[in-house]
Amino acid sequence: MIAKNYKDMLQAKSVIREFSEYATKRGQEIGYENVFDYSLGNPSVPVPDTYTENTIRLLQNENPGSLHGYSPSTGLLSFRQKVADSLNRRFGMNYTADHIFPTSGAAGALAHAIRCVTEPGDEILTFAPFFPEYNPYVNLSGAGLKVVPADTQTFQINFEKLEEMLTEKTAAVLVNTPNNPSGIVYSADTLQKLSDVLNRKAAKYGQDIFLLSDEPYREIIFDHADAPYVSKFYKNTLSCYSFSKSLSLPGERIGYVAVNPACTDAKQLVPMMAQISRGIGHNCPTALIMRGVEDVLDLTSDMSIYETNMNLLYDKLTELGFTVVRPGGTFYIFPKALEEDAKVFCQKALKYDLILVPSDSFGVSGYFRMAYCIDTEKVKRSLTALERFVKTEYPDAMNK
Amino acid sequence: MIAKNYKDMLQAKSVIREFSEYATKRGQEIGYENVFDYSLGNPSVPVPDTYTENTIRLLQNENPGSLHGYSPSTGLLSFRQKVADSLNRRFGMNYTADHIFPTSGAAGALAHAIRCVTEPGDEILTFAPFFPEYNPYVNLSGAGLKVVPADTQTFQINFEKLEEMLTEKTAAVLVNTPNNPSGIVYSADTLQKLSDVLNRKAAKYGQDIFLLSDEPYREIIFDHADAPYVSKFYKNTLSCYSFSKSLSLPGERIGYVAVNPACTDAKQLVPMMAQISRGIGHNCPTALIMRGVEDVLDLTSDMSIYETNMNLLYDKLTELGFTVVRPGGTFYIFPKALEEDAKVFCQKALKYDLILVPSDSFGVSGYFRMAYCIDTEKVKRSLTALERFVKTEYPDAMNK
Repeated sequence: MIAKNYKDMLQAKSVIREFSEYATKRGQEIGYENVFDYSLGNPSVPVPDTYTENTIRLLQNENPGSLHGYSPSTGLLSFRQKVADSLNRRFGMNYTADHIFPTSGAAGALAHAIRCVTEPGDEILTFAPFFPEYNPYVNLSGAGLKVVPADTQTFQINFEKLEEMLTEKTAAVLVNTPNNPSGIVYSADTLQKLSDVLNRKAAKYGQDIFLLSDEPYREIIFDHADAPYVSKFYKNTLSCYSFSKSLSLPGERIGYVAVNPACTDAKQLVPMMAQISRGIGHNCPTALIMRGVEDVLDLTSDMSIYETNMNLLYDKLTELGFTVVRPGGTFYIFPKALEEDAKVFCQKALKYDLILVPSDSFGVSGYFRMAYCIDTEKVKRSLTALERFVKTEYPDAMNK
Repeated sequence: MIAKNYKDMLQAKSVIREFSEYATKRGQEIGYENVFDYSLGNPSVPVPDTYTENTIRLLQNENPGSLHGYSPSTGLLSFRQKVADSLNRRFGMNYTADHIFPTSGAAGALAHAIRCVTEPGDEILTFAPFFPEYNPYVNLSGAGLKVVPADTQTFQINFEKLEEMLTEKTAAVLVNTPNNPSGIVYSADTLQKLSDVLNRKAAKYGQDIFLLSDEPYREIIFDHADAPYVSKFYKNTLSCYSFSKSLSLPGERIGYVAVNPACTDAKQLVPMMAQISRGIGHNCPTALIMRGVEDVLDLTSDMSIYETNMNLLYDKLTELGFTVVRPGGTFYIFPKALEEDAKVFCQKALKYDLILVPSDSFGVSGYFRMAYCIDTEKVKRSLTALERFVKTEYPDAMNK
């Protein structure tokens, strides 16, 4: 019979999508260059030319049968080895190819990692604010997602609530740093504390608790800082990565899971993920994309535009009286709305052709997200609109 | 906790893989050109040059941001529209883009189609002999696979057994024509009878019964025959296609589900599949591959080599006394073994460097599969080995 739960999901509307669709419609009326569309996290800088040149060379020179042939069920060995080498070099880890499982982006990585370390009915904890897709990612796997409330002062971890909510039912904890939507990078201190809690609770309950680390924004770090590598802090870590943002290849669906070599059953988890693939019809990312990416692992698109945009927005937002934690990375910023109901606030902003996304679906009320992966020139023009919006609708904001 | 069912799956050995690994090992000893490796269904003819040229042109000329950008959750509209047009032109259907859901090959297509039309606990019937991956495809979705025994005279459908086994619990029937492993193409007569049974049972039980049609071999048809298009015969049909074989692109993971426009909830099924993707981390095939394939939809690799190989093998097998139904398509042939235990038979063949796969995992005992997607020159050389094998080990076979 027609599957009821998936049919029911068609009724649920995505707020991000609603605002994004409005932006497209409005763009048709007044020209999209006049819509300050901060709704979507789509990279705005091109892939490095080296990637394109490499891929053309592969298509021109390689035997098509081997270039386009089936990959092993655990992915191309060359890709896995090169990812391990790159992570070891950059983060002082000791991965081998056996610890790397290529996937169709971070979504594919999480789909496999979640199924690997949970049984149906297990709980996974995550921290508000969080990427709303974690709901279907976790809940449709058979596990259940529980959300630890935000520490809205810093958007680091609310440890008091974590201690309360982490029980025998918790199979895994899911973190996302640098964070969508807050732009915050977890500090080494935060990660060490988290590791301590997980080790203590795991010992108390006599069971493994896994750390699923969703890291698509790992390469977008501001102020020349180094983001701590999550897996360094806790052995039972599965790092879920995507090249969507670092190489601006979101449509090409390429990423991986990296299993910490000290993890429980470390050598078995990747073969298990290959079994999981059989059930969910994944069967590896495309071979051509693995081949193209494996030779540019240490390159990124030009990320400096995101930092430029962040600084422009952060300065203007604080000047206008917004409460906002300064992002340490990503292309998101997450200010407090100027009235309690963020949806009403974002609706009012539409009058100024500012497309902001209210925070409710991220698990926090009263905030909004701006995705500033757009042209800097447009960011600059949007500042005038932002100022006009605030001064007209919230004349007292700057005096608070 | 570590997921037990996936861990347990690591113990199960794939017979196809075992024989294939032996072939690789033996190749290292005596040179792979001397191993008559009929174990794997990997296409042996290259992708059409037009595909490669198109893809290079896309990489050279397109804006990388739009070429590599996120696809909509239901896939690229251009790809969907062109697939619909091609199917309408070739098979007299009336698909629109709304009925086409792009997937990562037939495995991805089945993963979505199965979840769309079943609730956990529902049964799916398939027919022996069948592709062994149907077991994880179905069983890991939450539905259960039941296998209708083979009609070994023709390898068409055993309707007597189908009538017995099709009950209120049956949510869908899964067919694969042209068939792996038998190479048989279901006749129009078979498909009409199947449709009649499904319509009658659906009316009797007052419920929809869906037909999942797995068609990766649709373009590999012999004797210039036209294979009947399954969806023409039954309205509740979801056709699951892959370009892996027709374009020799198995590593690039590209295919689709085509929902019959007269199907129950036809317009909702594709949006539902996009919801299913969120749960299984699929999120569309890669954009570059969709763009490359959409302009060569009516092309195929040169399939004539498979027919040449089939004829060489069929003639020699019948000459040597094998019972074998002549394939109508694919690159498989499925003769009866010369002793009851097909595994023993295939083990003996290894002495002659013939890599044959015993039939047990395909749901029939006493047969073996040969995948003749290899060079014709090698097929010719293998005939001598085959003859020597039979005459030495089964000297009476030709007199039966």
